[in-house]
Amino acid sequence: MKRSERPIGVFDSGLGGLTVFKELRAQLPGENLIYFGDTARVPYGTKSAEAVIAFSREITAFLLKKKIKLLVVACNTASSLALDAVRKVSPVPVLGVILPGVEAALAAAPAGGKVLVTGTTATVNSRAYSKALAATGARVRVLEKACPLFVPLVEEGWCSKPVASAVAREYLLPFRGKKIDAVILGCTHYPLLKKIISKVMGPRTRIVDSAHAAAARARLELAERGELNSGRKGKSQFIVSDAPEKFSILAFKLLGIRTGKVAVKRF
Amino acid sequence: MKRSERPIGVFDSGLGGLTVFKELRAQLPGENLIYFGDTARVPYGTKSAEAVIAFSREITAFLLKKKIKLLVVACNTASSLALDAVRKVSPVPVLGVILPGVEAALAAAPAGGKVLVTGTTATVNSRAYSKALAATGARVRVLEKACPLFVPLVEEGWCSKPVASAVAREYLLPFRGKKIDAVILGCTHYPLLKKIISKVMGPRTRIVDSAHAAAARARLELAERGELNSGRKGKSQFIVSDAPEKFSILAFKLLGIRTGKVAVKRF
Repeated sequence: MKRSERPIGVFDSGLGGLTVFKELRAQLPGENLIYFGDTARVPYGTKSAEAVIAFSREITAFLLKKKIKLLVVACNTASSLALDAVRKVSPVPVLGVILPGVEAALAAAPAGGKVLVTGTTATVNSRAYSKALAATGARVRVLEKACPLFVPLVEEGWCSKPVASAVAREYLLPFRGKKIDAVILGCTHYPLLKKIISKVMGPRTRIVDSAHAAAARARLELAERGELNSGRKGKSQFIVSDAPEKFSILAFKLLGIRTGKVAVKRF
Repeated sequence: MKRSERPIGVFDSGLGGLTVFKELRAQLPGENLIYFGDTARVPYGTKSAEAVIAFSREITAFLLKKKIKLLVVACNTASSLALDAVRKVSPVPVLGVILPGVEAALAAAPAGGKVLVTGTTATVNSRAYSKALAATGARVRVLEKACPLFVPLVEEGWCSKPVASAVAREYLLPFRGKKIDAVILGCTHYPLLKKIISKVMGPRTRIVDSAHAAAARARLELAERGELNSGRKGKSQFIVSDAPEKFSILAFKLLGIRTGKVAVKRF
């Protein structure tokens, strides 16, 4: 198999990473994509760094056997905690979602502006976004807020219910008066709550998600290496560690993705 | 070691089973208790029967090595899906939380009355409570409602926030007018939301949780076998599969349990 025809591997703790998958599919229509969702151990966001690193390594080893040419860690928690560990064991390039999110936020926040990072408890505690923002040298003030109920809200399919607004207000209303320029949706589930979050934050605040930016970065990486697949219609394959039917149903319900048959790999 | 001095093993997907632990400690002060929380894979309630059975078997094998004399499955999801599988591999008696909950509900609902079973998606889909209620021959009508957001609400420590009431109303208000005699809290986390659930359901409805009944059943089982430990102050040991400090903090915050050092066993 020509190197360009090899698949891109994408993984997440569950189905949130499908927001990244969807962007990859849109921006890289010729690529073969393999998506892995660790539905037996979801969520990652409330677990320790040790556990998230161990899980990420197992999944990486599994995807490497599928002869992937690029690995996209489409999970903010794993990107925050396990990116270095994954890079150490991967002979192919590894992209996370933190840096693309940071770049998108900086495009929306002027010098001296304010960026609010939202995410799971693990992502926020890792301070991965703050560190990455600081590393760019940009003069923005960074605030952070863990929103652990957002993931189960999305997985319940309650994105447009009044209770979703109540939860969003509980977490974010204290930030509304603080002249936030950009909110980073630092969890791949959160784009599904974008409208509600935007309503709580008000019109002056841009809501940025990293899915679009992460896919653009993947395209750039492959282009630089001459590994873009210019085929017409890439294949998509979905593998989960538990409950394949439920994954398939939710992928369609939440994101309109038709998965076809979902395979199972248990660890 | 005398058989009566052997510990009782208790396990749950996370910390919800501590409501059962607390009742065991109160009703059986002389017993040595080992509690295992599968915090690396929590929650169980959204996962498949296959996964829950595999996890439960692993934990059972681990606890059997600790020379337990009795195993209490203090997790409704595991009790619903994995009790038979666990019994097949266990040489010591295995108690779940379903039957004690059913008995408590029947004590509160008259013949011809109505019982509402609440629980995780997996517990409700298993229909374990309905089947157990039917098996008693009691003439009660059983309704069921999965409430998957209750567990993350509790784990967030939001049990008395307005948003907890909003979530409880979303799930339960449609049942308020239906003359429910008893609501079974079919998840070990739910007793922590008892007040809010009671407020939504109104004064005519009894809220029953199985923790108290399960502990009473454990006492009976040991008494019948002549294996009660009449010592003065039993030891408590806590083991989790991830994030021991967080477990320790939440055990105290939510239930006032001082765990001391929590050990870690990874699978």
